Amino acid sequence: MKVYEFPEDKLINELIKRPVFDSQEIEDKVLPILEKIKSHGDEALREFALKFDNILINEFEIDLEEAKKIGNSIDDDLKNAINQAYKNIQLFHSYQKQEIVKIETMPGVQCWRKSVGIDKVGIYIPGGTAPLFSTVLMLGIPAKIAGCQEIVLCSPSNHPAIYYAATLVGVTKIFRIGGAQAIAAMAFGTETIPKVNKIFGPGNQYVTAAKQMVSKFGTAIDMPAGPSEVAILADDSAVPEFIAADLLSQAEHGIDSQVILISTSKDIISKTLLEIDIQIEKLPRKELALAALQNSKAILVDNIDLGVEILNKYAAEHLIISTINAEEVSEKIINAGSIFLGNYTPESAGDYASGTNHTLPTNGFATAYSGVSVDSFVKKITIQKISEKGIQNLGPIVEIMAHAESLDAHKMAITYRLKSL
Amino acid sequence: MKVYEFPEDKLINELIKRPVFDSQEIEDKVLPILEKIKSHGDEALREFALKFDNILINEFEIDLEEAKKIGNSIDDDLKNAINQAYKNIQLFHSYQKQEIVKIETMPGVQCWRKSVGIDKVGIYIPGGTAPLFSTVLMLGIPAKIAGCQEIVLCSPSNHPAIYYAATLVGVTKIFRIGGAQAIAAMAFGTETIPKVNKIFGPGNQYVTAAKQMVSKFGTAIDMPAGPSEVAILADDSAVPEFIAADLLSQAEHGIDSQVILISTSKDIISKTLLEIDIQIEKLPRKELALAALQNSKAILVDNIDLGVEILNKYAAEHLIISTINAEEVSEKIINAGSIFLGNYTPESAGDYASGTNHTLPTNGFATAYSGVSVDSFVKKITIQKISEKGIQNLGPIVEIMAHAESLDAHKMAITYRLKSL
Repeated sequence: MKVYEFPEDKLINELIKRPVFDSQEIEDKVLPILEKIKSHGDEALREFALKFDNILINEFEIDLEEAKKIGNSIDDDLKNAINQAYKNIQLFHSYQKQEIVKIETMPGVQCWRKSVGIDKVGIYIPGGTAPLFSTVLMLGIPAKIAGCQEIVLCSPSNHPAIYYAATLVGVTKIFRIGGAQAIAAMAFGTETIPKVNKIFGPGNQYVTAAKQMVSKFGTAIDMPAGPSEVAILADDSAVPEFIAADLLSQAEHGIDSQVILISTSKDIISKTLLEIDIQIEKLPRKELALAALQNSKAILVDNIDLGVEILNKYAAEHLIISTINAEEVSEKIINAGSIFLGNYTPESAGDYASGTNHTLPTNGFATAYSGVSVDSFVKKITIQKISEKGIQNLGPIVEIMAHAESLDAHKMAITYRLKSL
Repeated sequence: MKVYEFPEDKLINELIKRPVFDSQEIEDKVLPILEKIKSHGDEALREFALKFDNILINEFEIDLEEAKKIGNSIDDDLKNAINQAYKNIQLFHSYQKQEIVKIETMPGVQCWRKSVGIDKVGIYIPGGTAPLFSTVLMLGIPAKIAGCQEIVLCSPSNHPAIYYAATLVGVTKIFRIGGAQAIAAMAFGTETIPKVNKIFGPGNQYVTAAKQMVSKFGTAIDMPAGPSEVAILADDSAVPEFIAADLLSQAEHGIDSQVILISTSKDIISKTLLEIDIQIEKLPRKELALAALQNSKAILVDNIDLGVEILNKYAAEHLIISTINAEEVSEKIINAGSIFLGNYTPESAGDYASGTNHTLPTNGFATAYSGVSVDSFVKKITIQKISEKGIQNLGPIVEIMAHAESLDAHKMAITYRLKSL
């Protein structure tokens, strides 16, 4: 972790720049995969499973009863932990449902919105070193609350905890397929995999590219993806031991993880660095964390307001504020995915079980995107009903505006109605 | 308009297919424009204005006071109409603001969301035959309600009604530039045009391609775009004169407009076709409407439920339901941008002044996307605050889950905190 003391504006702008990835090469590799799945369906899925994962697959689908049985094999402690996380996430997200409010904008002109669950959604859970059953909760719970009818889970992992979470949240179909080909299968549909309307979930660069590419063909995706990030704003009241662990939590995700510490205290920075050296030795994923820390930065600033300014430019996915009056400070934050306040609110609380969603905008997208919520799984359809009286009130206004925009059939649609009354 | 009587499922699926456009050719033309704006800024903007629009531009920016003066030159009837539309749209959208609700998911674990306006947004209004001042209202009003700080309007049109609407809604900067180069300028920023976080608004295929392309580089956009559409579901209670005018309202937009009539009544279909022949003669934009009607379809169905089924597959941008019990029928609709109920609710009411937004998902995107609302102009940041007591309640759950996902630094961030208590 490199330390910068009171850097100038120009240097700060450099420090908070994200690495730029050229995705063209990846896209060129992914395109033929998408095309093959589109044209050859299940047959192509089997071929890719053999080619990339070296598995001979006849049946992709895991029967839900079978999944439940496998899921039940996890030990009781983990089961209870997942159950409690489920309860918290369910409670927090249930407040995101919106009731219908009918609004009479003029006498006889009634307008409202109804939220309807996106009919078919797909959840992708990567394989690899960590079985992300927590992501099954984070995506499955809001999907269910939203009222999605078909919730398809694709994962190359058959970890029992993933199956436990999947049956707990009420996933409707599980397929053991992975990679760009799984994304393509959900986007285009195959003989066995249903075509979905929106695809959610993390993945490697091939999965990410595939999601971005199918979104061009009409399948919606949760959000554009980039490497995971944490930024911490700390003053003298912070605890170096805690901050070090929080920074390492992010660093252990992968070598491209982004880790930034901004502090008004030189003492806190140097103590945190010492702590990192101690704690990192205890980590099974030490090598990943070490590599990620190579590119990470600690920035010493004059005052908290400057820290806030930098953070609003950076727009971190996760932002931990370990300062006196953390909540007051957070009110000045306009760009962040999720904010964690005070010394006893580590990022990992939100990653797993506090109730908030952990699928959040990375790479500066927090300037314009929100994290996943029930909103992400619904469409809001506007509806209006105008009475005879209403069209008499509203009609003349529309006639004038439509004519001024040279759209006279729009005007005519009003005129015929007014004439009939 | 071609009539299909009781078509079979297979034919229905063909009838509701959207035309597929190959955007590659357009993208190839747009890419160098984006690159030139990115590298040469204002200088390139001037060059493109001369090349594409044949205008010599020194100053792009229209001073707000100047715009207000020009805007005030529109006649009083139009001014009053716009003012009333503003009131209705403002009222309807003001209900979309969300209050903060703090939720205690476990004792000592407090989570909430705050909505923050996207800091800088861009609105594009095309030039061309129709001066779309209504779109200025539809995008500017929710931007203002959301609390966006910078609201940039780019348009090649200098129609006074656009300036009237722009100053009314509180746009903060107006630039007279258009085309793909305007989108690029807002996405990358130039010496005079501010870089924005999200771009909204309609445009020709070059503008649409440019929006799609800059979204890959990190600027968010309102939604993917396609030709405008209306679908009408009508039974015997519908009025052919009204339906004909509604179909023509859509057809006059352009030759690629999509127009579909589904009815349980042969009589209503044939009378509507006759009415179209009469009404179309009165239209200044007759040629456009005639061309659009070439590709439009009327489908006779056995019963309303089948109509609903077809419409849920089609996912129309605008859906007019002119049936008995229209509201009841609408409850079965799960895919549509905006729904208009009964004989006195023409699409043009919502296009201009009833209060709902007219920026809606086309091309079947209504299966997964919502129309523009205040939601489109905010990010929802989740925030959490955990007390010492809270981490004691929640911590052990997180420890178990993090360890099960092999993310032990995540566990450690909890363990250090629990140990300190």
